[in-house]
Amino acid sequence: MAKTAVTPTREENFSEWYQNVITAAELAENSPSAGCMTVKPYGWAIWELMQAELDKRIKEVGVQNCQFPTLIPVDFLSREAQHVEGFAKESMIVTHHRLKMGADKKLIADPDSVLAEPYIMRPTSETIIGEAMSRWIQSYRDLPMKLNQWCSVFRWEMRARMFLRSREFFWQEGHNVFATEEEAREDAMKMHGIYNEYMKDVLAINSIVGEKTPEERFAGADNTYTREQIMQDGKALQVGTSHYLGQHFSKSFDIKYLGADGQLHYAHTTSWGTTSRMIGSVIMSHGDDDGLVLPVRIAPYQAVIIPIVRDENAEALNEYAEMIGEELRERGIRVMVDVSDVQTSDKIWKWIRRGAPLRIEVGMREKDAFSATVTRRDLGKVSQRTMPLTELYNSVPGLLETIHEDMLAKNEAMCKSMIAEVSDLEGLKAKLEADWKGFVRLPYDATLAPGFDVLMEKYRISRRCLDEADPKFVFVAKCY
Amino acid sequence: MAKTAVTPTREENFSEWYQNVITAAELAENSPSAGCMTVKPYGWAIWELMQAELDKRIKEVGVQNCQFPTLIPVDFLSREAQHVEGFAKESMIVTHHRLKMGADKKLIADPDSVLAEPYIMRPTSETIIGEAMSRWIQSYRDLPMKLNQWCSVFRWEMRARMFLRSREFFWQEGHNVFATEEEAREDAMKMHGIYNEYMKDVLAINSIVGEKTPEERFAGADNTYTREQIMQDGKALQVGTSHYLGQHFSKSFDIKYLGADGQLHYAHTTSWGTTSRMIGSVIMSHGDDDGLVLPVRIAPYQAVIIPIVRDENAEALNEYAEMIGEELRERGIRVMVDVSDVQTSDKIWKWIRRGAPLRIEVGMREKDAFSATVTRRDLGKVSQRTMPLTELYNSVPGLLETIHEDMLAKNEAMCKSMIAEVSDLEGLKAKLEADWKGFVRLPYDATLAPGFDVLMEKYRISRRCLDEADPKFVFVAKCY
Repeated sequence: MAKTAVTPTREENFSEWYQNVITAAELAENSPSAGCMTVKPYGWAIWELMQAELDKRIKEVGVQNCQFPTLIPVDFLSREAQHVEGFAKESMIVTHHRLKMGADKKLIADPDSVLAEPYIMRPTSETIIGEAMSRWIQSYRDLPMKLNQWCSVFRWEMRARMFLRSREFFWQEGHNVFATEEEAREDAMKMHGIYNEYMKDVLAINSIVGEKTPEERFAGADNTYTREQIMQDGKALQVGTSHYLGQHFSKSFDIKYLGADGQLHYAHTTSWGTTSRMIGSVIMSHGDDDGLVLPVRIAPYQAVIIPIVRDENAEALNEYAEMIGEELRERGIRVMVDVSDVQTSDKIWKWIRRGAPLRIEVGMREKDAFSATVTRRDLGKVSQRTMPLTELYNSVPGLLETIHEDMLAKNEAMCKSMIAEVSDLEGLKAKLEADWKGFVRLPYDATLAPGFDVLMEKYRISRRCLDEADPKFVFVAKCY
Repeated sequence: MAKTAVTPTREENFSEWYQNVITAAELAENSPSAGCMTVKPYGWAIWELMQAELDKRIKEVGVQNCQFPTLIPVDFLSREAQHVEGFAKESMIVTHHRLKMGADKKLIADPDSVLAEPYIMRPTSETIIGEAMSRWIQSYRDLPMKLNQWCSVFRWEMRARMFLRSREFFWQEGHNVFATEEEAREDAMKMHGIYNEYMKDVLAINSIVGEKTPEERFAGADNTYTREQIMQDGKALQVGTSHYLGQHFSKSFDIKYLGADGQLHYAHTTSWGTTSRMIGSVIMSHGDDDGLVLPVRIAPYQAVIIPIVRDENAEALNEYAEMIGEELRERGIRVMVDVSDVQTSDKIWKWIRRGAPLRIEVGMREKDAFSATVTRRDLGKVSQRTMPLTELYNSVPGLLETIHEDMLAKNEAMCKSMIAEVSDLEGLKAKLEADWKGFVRLPYDATLAPGFDVLMEKYRISRRCLDEADPKFVFVAKCY
C-alpha cells in the first residue's frame, strides 16, 4: 500500500491537496474573519526569509523603504479613472469610528460616529503615494525617487484561497518616479529582471516572463510585465508584476518637476510588487504527496536533526544531536534539533510534511561511529546516506547548494514539458479538448479572432503574457 | 546671535520644537488621512533598525512571529468586558465591501454592500489570538506557547501627534500562554526586563520602571508593568508595557489544556508590546536645538562623510571620501558618503538635523595629509578633531561605543535630576505650584486621599507607576 503523508494526492485532487499541505505543514489557516488567513509561525518564518532576500535586492538598487497609511480617502481613488474601475468593487470601507452596545446586547457601529468622508483600506497605494510625491518632488534634483513599502493590502475577494487570494494579504509595493520616459521604462524592466532572478535564486522556480497583453494590464498602466509560474496541475500563477505607468498617475496627482531647462514637466512613474502568494507558488511548484518541499534559501530550518531515542539513551543521544547542531550553526546553517517529547516516527513525518531540506537522523549506531544519516527531502529515501561527522560538517553547505540547483533544474524541466506549441485557434482548441495540462503558446494575433473568447469562456483560460523572447507569441492557460 | 537649526528652541516651545525636529530630520509627516502619519524613508530606516534589534531579543527567548488578520469580528471584542470598555470608543469600523459612484459624482460606500457583521480594525489582538490559541492548545505539551506579531494597529485618537499618538501606529504585540500562574508571572517580568535592557542598550534611554497602579492598568490585565521615560520637558512617555493577564482571556476565549494530571485547566496568559512611539522618545530624550541626536545602534548612517568640494577638486575629493567610506563599511559601520550636488554647508546642516552620530569632513588639506576631521553629533564643535586615516579606521568602532555610553549616562543624569521626592500631598502640591518640570515620587498611599484627584485634574498629572525598587512609592507626572 502506497501511503502518503498528505491525502488526497496531487493526482487525485490537486486543489484539496494544496489546502491539506498548508494544514499539514502548519503554514496557515482560515481565520474567523471570513476570507482572511492567519499565518502560523512556520509560514511566517518562511515569509520573513522571503522578505529579507527580496528587501536586500531592492535596497541594492537604491530603493528606500517607508510607510504610508492603510486608510486612503476614497476621494483619492476617484482621480485615476481606470484605477477606480479596477478596485472600487472589491474594497473594504471604514465608515464609523466607534462601537456601541446595541439593543440586543450586540456591539454595533455607533450611528453617531459616521465619518464625514469614508476611507478605503489600501488595495494598493499608487494614489496616496502619488499625492505625497507631488509635494516631495520639486526639481529634477529630487529624481529619481524610489520608494517601497512592506505592508498588508485588502481586497474583498469572493472566493478566498490561502496565499493565493485572500481579503488581506502581504506584499511589497514599489513606486518609482523618473524625469524621463526612457528611465522609467528601463526601471520597469529592471525590477522585472530582479524579480525573475529572485524567483530562480531564492525560490528555485522558473518563470514564464513577458508583457501582459492590453486586455490583462494593471488598472492604470501603459505596460505590465509579469512572471507566470506553471503549477504542477498545469495552471498559471501570476507572481509579481512591474508596471510602466507612463504619466497617468503623475497627471492625476500632479507629480511635476522643474527641469534643468527651467520648465515644469510631468514625471514618469513605475510600480512593482510581489506578494505572499509566492508561498502558494512554492507549495504548488515543489510540493509532493508527502507535503511541502522547501527551497533551501527560504527554509526556516535547512537541516533538522532527529535523535532516534529510546528511554535509556535519550540524554546521550540528545546531547550528540545538539553537538552536531552547534557545529552546523557555526557554519551558517539554520538548524533545528528536535528533542521534543514525541515519537521518533512522528517527528520524522512532521519534518517531511514541513519540507525541511535535510533530515539528519542519529541513533546509537551513528553516535558510536561518530556519524549521522542524512536524507534529502527533495529526493527522499534514495538519497539516504550515513557519513562520518567530519564529512557531514564539510558537505552540508555544498549539499544545500546542490539541492537548490536540482530543484530549480527539475522545475525548469517540468515547465518545459508543460508548454505546448500550436499555430492557430484550431490547434489551441484541440489541446483544450484533449485536456492539456499546461500552457499553450500560439501567435498573439490568432487570439484576437472572435473564436478565442468562446474558448476563454468554455475552458476558463486567459492570455497570461506575451513571450518575452518573441512578443508575437502569447502564452495561454488556466489560472489561479 | 545664537542661531539653531530648529526653531523654536526646546526652551521656547517644546511641543512645536518636537514637530519641527520631525520635519527637519525628514522622519515623517501628517498624512491626508487625518490623524495618520506617513513615515518617510529616514524615519522608517530608524524603525527597521529598532525592529531588528528587538526582534532578535524576542526570538532569543523562544518567541515565534506570526500574523493574524487586521480585521477582527466585533463580536470577539464583546467577550472580555473590560477590554470592550477600553477599546470600543476609539475604533475604526469596516461596514461595507464596495464603493459606488454617488449622485454627485462622488464615490460612496455602496449601501448594497453592507456587511452582516462589521469588523473592527485591530486595536490590539488579545481576542483574535485568544480564539486561535483555544484551538491550537490541547495539552500541557503545547505549552508554553509564545507568539509575537509586528503589525499596524488602529485607534481613533482625537488629538494625534506623530509617533506619540496616531490613528495608525506600528508595533509588536507578544502573546504568551503558560500552564501555571507562576510561569506566566515570571514571563511578564522577563519581557519587562528585556524591554528595560533594550531601552538602555539600543536607545540609550533610562527608564523609570515599575507596576502600574490599579487605576492605570491595561484593560483586562491583573498586573501591568511599564517603563516611563522622562522627556526633556519633564513629562512622562510610557514606552512599552508587559501584562500578566491572569485567566481573564483564557476564560473569555476558552484556552484550556489537558494537564499531566488528566484534568482540563485554564491557561495563564501574558501580553507585551512596544511601539513606534519609541521614535518619539528618542527625539525628546536626546534631541537638541539643532534637531535629532540619534543613538548609534539605530542610526541609519552612523558616520556621514562630507567632502568639502570646490568645482576644481570635486572629483578627487569625492573619490577620497568614497575610499574612506569603503574602509569604514568593511569595519561594519553604516556609512553615508554624501556626494550630492548641494552646497557643503547645507549638507553639514542636513546631517546635523538628522542626528547622524559622526560627521567626517574631508577637504583638500585632509586629503593631502591622509587625514579626516571628525565631529560627534552629541557633543558638537568641541569634539571636532582632525586625525590620520589609520587612526580614524581604528577608532570609529570604539568611538561609536563611547557615544552610546555617553548618551546613556547623560540621559541617566538628566532623569535623576528630574525626580523630586516629597512625602505627602502638600509636598506634591508645592512642587506643582512651583511648576516642577519632572517626576515626583511620593508614598502611593498619599495619592489615595481625595485631594489627589483635585491635583490630577488641575495639573493634568497622573500616577505613572509604582517604584519597582520600593512599591510603597509611586511616580507622578504629566504625560504624553
